[in-house]
Amino acid sequence: MDTPNKGARTRSEIVRRAAPLFNQHGFEGTSLSELMAATGLKKGGIYRHFSSKEELALEAFDYAWEQAAAGRLAGIREVPDCVDRLKMMIDNFVEKRAGLVPGGCPLLNTAIDSDDGNPALRSRARIAMQRWTNRISAIVSEGIHKRQIDAKVNPRKLSQIIISSLEGALMIGRIQGNDVALQNAREHLDHYLEQNVRAASGKSRRVRAS
Amino acid sequence: MDTPNKGARTRSEIVRRAAPLFNQHGFEGTSLSELMAATGLKKGGIYRHFSSKEELALEAFDYAWEQAAAGRLAGIREVPDCVDRLKMMIDNFVEKRAGLVPGGCPLLNTAIDSDDGNPALRSRARIAMQRWTNRISAIVSEGIHKRQIDAKVNPRKLSQIIISSLEGALMIGRIQGNDVALQNAREHLDHYLEQNVRAASGKSRRVRAS
Repeated sequence: MDTPNKGARTRSEIVRRAAPLFNQHGFEGTSLSELMAATGLKKGGIYRHFSSKEELALEAFDYAWEQAAAGRLAGIREVPDCVDRLKMMIDNFVEKRAGLVPGGCPLLNTAIDSDDGNPALRSRARIAMQRWTNRISAIVSEGIHKRQIDAKVNPRKLSQIIISSLEGALMIGRIQGNDVALQNAREHLDHYLEQNVRAASGKSRRVRAS
Repeated sequence: MDTPNKGARTRSEIVRRAAPLFNQHGFEGTSLSELMAATGLKKGGIYRHFSSKEELALEAFDYAWEQAAAGRLAGIREVPDCVDRLKMMIDNFVEKRAGLVPGGCPLLNTAIDSDDGNPALRSRARIAMQRWTNRISAIVSEGIHKRQIDAKVNPRKLSQIIISSLEGALMIGRIQGNDVALQNAREHLDHYLEQNVRAASGKSRRVRAS
C-alpha cells in the first residue's frame, strides 16, 4: 500500500499528466484509455485516488489554471507603478511566458467545452475567472489609491476589458495560426492604459522623465 | 428517386438541422445517431447527399456562420455614418439580434474545437474570420475616405480590436452566465470609437447637433 506521502505524490502526478489531455480534448473528449496511457496506470490505479473522472477533470483544470495564472502574473509584484504592472501582465499573456499546459488557455477551452457540458467544470471556470478579475481589479484599486491611476476608472470594468481583449485575441490567433491579433491587442491596451487609465500626474511625471 | 429540386431541398434541410448539433457538440462530439435523430433520416439518407461527416460539418459551419454574420450586419447598410455603422454592428452583436444557431458563435466554437481537431474546419473558420475582418475594414476605409474616420486609424487593426473585444466578452459571458462583459465591451468600444476613431470634424458636427 502507498504511504500517505507517496499517495499524495502519485495523486498530483496523475493530475499533472491528465491536465494536457483535458485541456486539449475537453471533458467528454478525454477517454479513460488516454488517461491510462498518459499516467501509466490501470483504471483501478487512477480511481484509487479519484472518486470519478469528474473529480480528476476538476483538479486537472485547477492545475492548468494555476500554471496559466502564475505565468501571467509572474514578476508583476516587483513593479512599483500599477499601470506598468498591468502592462507587464499583458506582456506575460502575449508572450506566453505563461508556461501553459498544452492546449492553451484553460479558461478559453473550458468556456466552450462546458457550454453544453459539465456544470461542475463550468463553475470551476467561473471561480477562476472571478479570481483573475479580482487580481486585476486589486491592482487598479491600488493604482487609484496611489494616484497612479485616474480615479474615474472602474476597476472591475477595466479588468474585464483587458481580459476580453486578450482572450478574444487568443481565440483569433488560434484560428489564424499566428499571434498578430495578440500583438495588436497589446498595442491597443497599452495605448488605452496610457491615454485613459494613467493618472494625469503620472503622465506628466513620465513626460518629464523622458 | 428525388427530383433535382427535391434533392437540393433535402440537402439544405439536413444542413439546417445538423448545424445546431455541430455548433453545440463540435465535430468529434456529434454522432451519426444524433444526426439521424435530428434529420429523421437513416445513415444512407444522409450520405446520399454528403460524401462524409466532414463535408456535412463544413456546410453546417458555413450555414451557422452565415446566420451569425447576417444578424451582426443586419441594417448597417442603411446607416450613412461609418462610425455609427460600426456601433450598430456592435449593438447587433451584443443584443444577439443575430438569430444565432443554438450553441452560440460558430467562430468561437470552431476555434476551440478545431484546435486539436479537423484541419478542414479550421480552414473554414479562418476564411470566415478573414471575411468578417474584411467587412469591418471596408467600413473603416470608407469612413476614412468620407472623412468620418480619422485618417490615422488602421482599418485592419481596428477590425481586429473590435472582433477580439466582442468574442472575448462573449467567452466571459458564457462562463459567467450573463452578458455583463458584453455590455461592458460595448461601452468600451463605443467610447473608443468616439474618442479615437471618429474624425475631429465629425466630432464637432455631433457636438453642434446635440
